[in-house]
Amino acid sequence: MDPSLGSRRAVLHGAFDPDSFFRSSLAELKADGRYRTFLELERRAGAFPLADVPGRQDSVVVWCSNDYLGMGQHPVVLNAMHEAIDRVGTGAGGTRNISGNTRDHVLLERELADLHGKEAALVFATGYVTNEAALSTLAGLIPGCIVYSDALNHASMIAGIRHSKAEKRIFRHNDVGDLERLMAADDPARPKLVCFESVYSMDADVGPIKAICDVAEHYSAMTYLDEVHAVGLYGERGAGVAEREGQMHRLTVIQGTLGKAFGCGGGYIAASALLIDFVRSHAPGFIFTTSMPPAVAAAARASVAHLKASSTERQSHQKIVADVKSRLKEAGVPVMPSETHLVPVFVGDAHLVRRISDELLEQHGIYIQPINYPTVPRGTERLRITPTPLHTGEQVEHLVEAVVSVFQSHGLSIGQAA
Amino acid sequence: MDPSLGSRRAVLHGAFDPDSFFRSSLAELKADGRYRTFLELERRAGAFPLADVPGRQDSVVVWCSNDYLGMGQHPVVLNAMHEAIDRVGTGAGGTRNISGNTRDHVLLERELADLHGKEAALVFATGYVTNEAALSTLAGLIPGCIVYSDALNHASMIAGIRHSKAEKRIFRHNDVGDLERLMAADDPARPKLVCFESVYSMDADVGPIKAICDVAEHYSAMTYLDEVHAVGLYGERGAGVAEREGQMHRLTVIQGTLGKAFGCGGGYIAASALLIDFVRSHAPGFIFTTSMPPAVAAAARASVAHLKASSTERQSHQKIVADVKSRLKEAGVPVMPSETHLVPVFVGDAHLVRRISDELLEQHGIYIQPINYPTVPRGTERLRITPTPLHTGEQVEHLVEAVVSVFQSHGLSIGQAA
Ligand SMILES: Cc1ncc(COP(=O)(O)O)c(C=O)c1O
Ligand SMILES: Cc1ncc(COP(=O)(O)O)c(C=O)c1O
Repeated sequence: MDPSLGSRRAVLHGAFDPDSFFRSSLAELKADGRYRTFLELERRAGAFPLADVPGRQDSVVVWCSNDYLGMGQHPVVLNAMHEAIDRVGTGAGGTRNISGNTRDHVLLERELADLHGKEAALVFATGYVTNEAALSTLAGLIPGCIVYSDALNHASMIAGIRHSKAEKRIFRHNDVGDLERLMAADDPARPKLVCFESVYSMDADVGPIKAICDVAEHYSAMTYLDEVHAVGLYGERGAGVAEREGQMHRLTVIQGTLGKAFGCGGGYIAASALLIDFVRSHAPGFIFTTSMPPAVAAAARASVAHLKASSTERQSHQKIVADVKSRLKEAGVPVMPSETHLVPVFVGDAHLVRRISDELLEQHGIYIQPINYPTVPRGTERLRITPTPLHTGEQVEHLVEAVVSVFQSHGLSIGQAA
Repeated sequence: MDPSLGSRRAVLHGAFDPDSFFRSSLAELKADGRYRTFLELERRAGAFPLADVPGRQDSVVVWCSNDYLGMGQHPVVLNAMHEAIDRVGTGAGGTRNISGNTRDHVLLERELADLHGKEAALVFATGYVTNEAALSTLAGLIPGCIVYSDALNHASMIAGIRHSKAEKRIFRHNDVGDLERLMAADDPARPKLVCFESVYSMDADVGPIKAICDVAEHYSAMTYLDEVHAVGLYGERGAGVAEREGQMHRLTVIQGTLGKAFGCGGGYIAASALLIDFVRSHAPGFIFTTSMPPAVAAAARASVAHLKASSTERQSHQKIVADVKSRLKEAGVPVMPSETHLVPVFVGDAHLVRRISDELLEQHGIYIQPINYPTVPRGTERLRITPTPLHTGEQVEHLVEAVVSVFQSHGLSIGQAA
């Protein structure tokens, strides 16, 4: 880029120069190894996890998609989307209130309420928007509300809580004792809201849902559970970890996404009809925005309905996850502890994790995006591998060999193997 | 709904009872005439502005869609979406950084940068998210930034500015003198950002873009223009009012939506490559969320490209808008002043506007959603009519007759006519 561009309005009488500010801020990110370059990826419907990358002859194997089950290319989902486009067109054409409330939105919300055994559900543009809008509204409008937030909660929950301006207590990650200590110290009459996740996607651990519900009930607190990385994947009907553990009915709000295991896009909360009506009526992030394209709603509904009835995908998923974990561990790769379908591999340096990722791609045709700060703490940079039921045994084999080879070439300790 | 539901955890030792709080808050909205019921609308691809409503035999004519040109059913747009689904599937499967950056996203951003004559563009889930994320990041991270915000700016801009925690000055709506007075009083060395809209969609007036740019340049301020209700509709290539008035190159940031005139969904900013890279690298609302379904990006790109090359839709749009305005005025309907494609009709009472809207629907098969507080100030409740090139002369005739008849039946003053 021409560095003289845009310097037009700068420098006179020492006024602020935006371009030099942006340039030096970006230079800092680069020096820090935190500057992100997006790999341009062309998925191939029907061939996932294979994808094309510009300038590469051969396709690459994607090992870091959150389309955990490959539902983004499932015929049932594709057909529902095609059908809806033919039926109602592309966009919704309005907010939910002003001509943008279609049958596809209504049916999707019914499907999601049923999935979680709740009276109602409300759909938003993304899971991020859901957390921001729902939490800022609930914690912001319930008078005197105190929010108890797990220390490792996702950026979107942090945004919602921050924007609510409610009083906030951070409890140590997954530490129910710490949560209880904080609640016990607060006025019993104050409204309380406990916010946490089921699957923490960067650390691959799971929130103690039952224990948190026990404490919350004892202190008459509401609970808000983010199941973004669990819906579709756990439980008899794919409603998430709370379903698997028989706790769904105890949660005040269950939040999820339609953009990961369900393979589409959008987010939602499921809760009592009153709570949903309250958020629907008050959340600016829900009210003042065009509703999602009906075809996306239709596709998501088809995906949810399919995974409600079919456990095949979940079973194959668990199987390949176990396989990838044990094969990598056997090969001496530093797999971080994981109770879930996520396979984080420790590297611990921002520049190095980027180089490893580049080499996996260039030399082995394997795409695993490096995870760095601020997504994870500095010094814990990692690869995050997401096996899907569509990865083949051969691809697993190839993955293990490639990771071992690249780790060794960088002198990274490889345990017993190779 | 069973009122006993969810009272489980309430009342013990006077603890907060969420359900009774939600219930009484909703009752207040209802008493106030502000409770919103969403009409369930089934658009019919190919038959827009006709749509189906459950429980109604005949279809209704939609007169309040923001799919201003009917691009949501344009064959070029539908085909692009179908084609993308077949090619890459439904969802993106990841954030832009982690496997969710597809060729469709990249090409859409290039198309949008070109549309606005800027170096780069960045796409978000919606126009709302765009304003929230871009403004909170720019105003929040530029040290000492002061934001100058038009008094009637949209909720999404207000959210972004509020979340930035930057110092904020509100200038009187479209009042350049007031803006100048505020800027002159501030430290010349402080970074400044002026936020405003081109088309204000509820008042149907237009921001003084040239005059604001003049003042902003004089005080070395950056400018951020929301063209959400103008993109696709104004200017040689549909880039908006700034294009029409030859001011595009003077604006630091142009923001738009893909969900209204472009008939799809999503939002974006266009600006210098440095500014875009800065927002891309820092905005949590951009970073920590699944990217839009590639098929939506592909459809939006096709729509933008089409309207760049074709002025037919814009011309027919202007023509029917002029026709509807003059016909309604001639019939004595209280059309509010409008310099734009929006036709607001004054009612001034929350309950009455709702009744009028209901009767238009039930008795005349015409759907115009009532607009009430907080979207517009109390006492200025209105109908907001949005003619499209796809409305027929017969439908215009029918609209005018129906509005006159319903207004008269409520004793609302009808000017000279009928
Ligand atoms: C825990 C958690 N919640 C919410 C989100 C946001 O969901 P979405 O991608 O649908 O915006 C994410 C990731 O994207 C997440 O990891
Ligand atoms: C001025 C203005 N900006 C932004 C938005 C939000 O755009 P979107 O509907 O794409 O979220 C709207 C309306 O929805 C608007 O009226």
